[in-house]
Amino acid sequence: MTQREYALKGTITAEMRAVCDTEKMSVDTLAGRVRSGEIAIVKNRTHAIQPVGVGKGLSTKVNANLGTSKLASNIDFELQKMEVALRHGADAIMDLSTGGDVNAIRKAILAGCGKPLGTVPLYQVGHDVLKSGRRMFDMTLDDMLAVIAQQAAEGVDFMTIHSGINRDTVARYEKSDRITGCVSRGGAILLEWMAVNGKENPLFEHYDDVLAILHDYDVTISLGDGMRPGSLHDATDRTQVSELIVLGELAERALAKGVQVIIEGPGHVPLNEIEANILLQKKLCNNVPFYVLGPLVTDVAPGYDHITGAIGGAIAATAGADFLCYVTPAEHLKLPDLEDVKEGVVAFKIAAHAADIAKGIPGAIDWDIAMSKRRKALDWKGQFELAMDREKCERYRSSATADGVEECTMCGEFCSMQRDSSVRAKNSEIKK
Amino acid sequence: MTQREYALKGTITAEMRAVCDTEKMSVDTLAGRVRSGEIAIVKNRTHAIQPVGVGKGLSTKVNANLGTSKLASNIDFELQKMEVALRHGADAIMDLSTGGDVNAIRKAILAGCGKPLGTVPLYQVGHDVLKSGRRMFDMTLDDMLAVIAQQAAEGVDFMTIHSGINRDTVARYEKSDRITGCVSRGGAILLEWMAVNGKENPLFEHYDDVLAILHDYDVTISLGDGMRPGSLHDATDRTQVSELIVLGELAERALAKGVQVIIEGPGHVPLNEIEANILLQKKLCNNVPFYVLGPLVTDVAPGYDHITGAIGGAIAATAGADFLCYVTPAEHLKLPDLEDVKEGVVAFKIAAHAADIAKGIPGAIDWDIAMSKRRKALDWKGQFELAMDREKCERYRSSATADGVEECTMCGEFCSMQRDSSVRAKNSEIKK
Repeated sequence: MTQREYALKGTITAEMRAVCDTEKMSVDTLAGRVRSGEIAIVKNRTHAIQPVGVGKGLSTKVNANLGTSKLASNIDFELQKMEVALRHGADAIMDLSTGGDVNAIRKAILAGCGKPLGTVPLYQVGHDVLKSGRRMFDMTLDDMLAVIAQQAAEGVDFMTIHSGINRDTVARYEKSDRITGCVSRGGAILLEWMAVNGKENPLFEHYDDVLAILHDYDVTISLGDGMRPGSLHDATDRTQVSELIVLGELAERALAKGVQVIIEGPGHVPLNEIEANILLQKKLCNNVPFYVLGPLVTDVAPGYDHITGAIGGAIAATAGADFLCYVTPAEHLKLPDLEDVKEGVVAFKIAAHAADIAKGIPGAIDWDIAMSKRRKALDWKGQFELAMDREKCERYRSSATADGVEECTMCGEFCSMQRDSSVRAKNSEIKK
Repeated sequence: MTQREYALKGTITAEMRAVCDTEKMSVDTLAGRVRSGEIAIVKNRTHAIQPVGVGKGLSTKVNANLGTSKLASNIDFELQKMEVALRHGADAIMDLSTGGDVNAIRKAILAGCGKPLGTVPLYQVGHDVLKSGRRMFDMTLDDMLAVIAQQAAEGVDFMTIHSGINRDTVARYEKSDRITGCVSRGGAILLEWMAVNGKENPLFEHYDDVLAILHDYDVTISLGDGMRPGSLHDATDRTQVSELIVLGELAERALAKGVQVIIEGPGHVPLNEIEANILLQKKLCNNVPFYVLGPLVTDVAPGYDHITGAIGGAIAATAGADFLCYVTPAEHLKLPDLEDVKEGVVAFKIAAHAADIAKGIPGAIDWDIAMSKRRKALDWKGQFELAMDREKCERYRSSATADGVEECTMCGEFCSMQRDSSVRAKNSEIKK
């Protein structure tokens, strides 16, 4: 039985209790939202990890993508990136490897991450097909189901499945004026497959077969948006929204089969369209959790897409998105290195936390209050203990300020914290 | 006569035309908004620079703070920071020096920046008073007016003047439950002055004398928010809002005297309160331009406040803020170095541009469309030409990808751009 089926039966599970241990939500509320589909408890029943809850009223979660490509694959480096991501607070990891020994890489991450691991099984299918000398569009439904079953059995906790692309979506897409077309790797593989083979998307046509496998291991399906916009110009267009309608229908079918479900979203979206995108997703998709990639609020800043994405992510999460996929400074340029992974995770932890305060997640503001008290007291050690990145803070301060100096080089003897405190102390003395 | 007075008389000036050369706005519209106070044309009439327009319907501007403190002062380093800020697109510079030869530093920046320069004259007053062996609260009204007059005559284009702090504001402040109290350096100096001397804030009491000096040089007054919140907890409280009401009254008096005016705003603000802060400022202050510092959407990420500030800045500018003061990764820790200045400017240029798209500034989206077309074409050189930071993009790509490889290491042979284009090409061939 899946967590969803337990919830439907009114059973409180150890996984539900474990989620509530780290979130300020009663287990009854949690169970009610798992029942309604508004919350997913992400954990393959065979994967020995702390389950992570994603959805309404829970803190916003951050995912870090790892993974190789044919041009860059090294298993040790993937594990180092994983360690950096986890150390800086990633709540989930996706392994998007498409090069090297993809099975070994996934297994190593599964064994070491301690958090939910997600994959896009189609990448492994594509990798295997190419390795065997066939072409990408030679893959079969059986190839796809076999990989999904293999990864589910190994313990993968959530999988991106691009079932939302179908002939209707493609027909709309072909009439569109998109600039960047289809930017989803999985989506582009399926588009090509459909065009060459002249058939419906097998992951749409045989969706129930996919659900049956996922159900057996309580793998959360993350319905991929193969037609997500890859540029501001393409955002919120008919292609994107018609795929989203299909994703909503597929989400309903997953819920009906007891499978937990998340919907993936854009991508590149102008800042003023983000809130509408979230509202639309929630309305069209039974309020299931929404997992956004960024979204990036401009296309012109490659090298800084952790920032363009953190801006969009903070707004999206405030509007109700539940799960943010990080973007690193390397996006659009190369695979990230260790520093890029760190920058990406921190930027999105900031976005998630800012949104948690804004949407009133219980306790979120307490961290800021504690930090502000220490800041006012010029308690540097105390600030560093609470800082999102202690090492960077210590390095910055020690690079500029001699030991024993209380204020920092920004203000020196103009320090407003000191002056204001001194005035207040004098005033309260006078009042006594 | 000031630009505002010309506009009131119906005269179109060379400065107005110069602003319209770089903005997609008719000079009549611009003049109308200078007349209403909704736009300020920032340029001291004696400073030989390109004037910069700030306000309704114009692109969002970004200011970079420079400046020394007693703990770190080096004139060459300030000029290097200035060069880095301008190279990455800063629209204005503020010199906040409080240490070393502050006169020489300001003059060097004035001579070299080519963009509007702003100052907080109170810093020089404080510096001079301390240097002469007096205490900060020994400064007199005449000291203040003398420095304002000196800097105006030298060509400073805009000045932060903390006239909004008065006895009423202080009375409210003393009843407040603020955590971080008064975090404005200028504000804290005046608070102490008022407490020790038992008198009203001279910059409030003798505001007309200040305006008379600024008027003579067409210096834009930037009404400082001495009581801005320094933590999320303190945001949008009675102290802040009652000072804002006073600032609105002072703005009206400046406009009546022909002086151009800008209002400064927070600071640290929870994401969900930013829009209300902008609306409030616009309503209470005759819709004059709003200049925000960030705002930072969380207190817990020192070392990354360029990101916490860019998130807030993008939202503020979308809601109507006209001018963003950058925040660097060094904020709350030390004075910024060259890399910090660059990171700060780029983060806020991203925020400003994302907001310009969102608020429909004519032509803003064109940059993104051009970039997206080059991205789709895998035209790397073309992308780098348009990128906000060309050097970083080139460095990232060349660090990972061999010459002659078209795709990047992120996807390799899974490149969706290539696969999608190939499908579309095939389909359109079939249709022929």
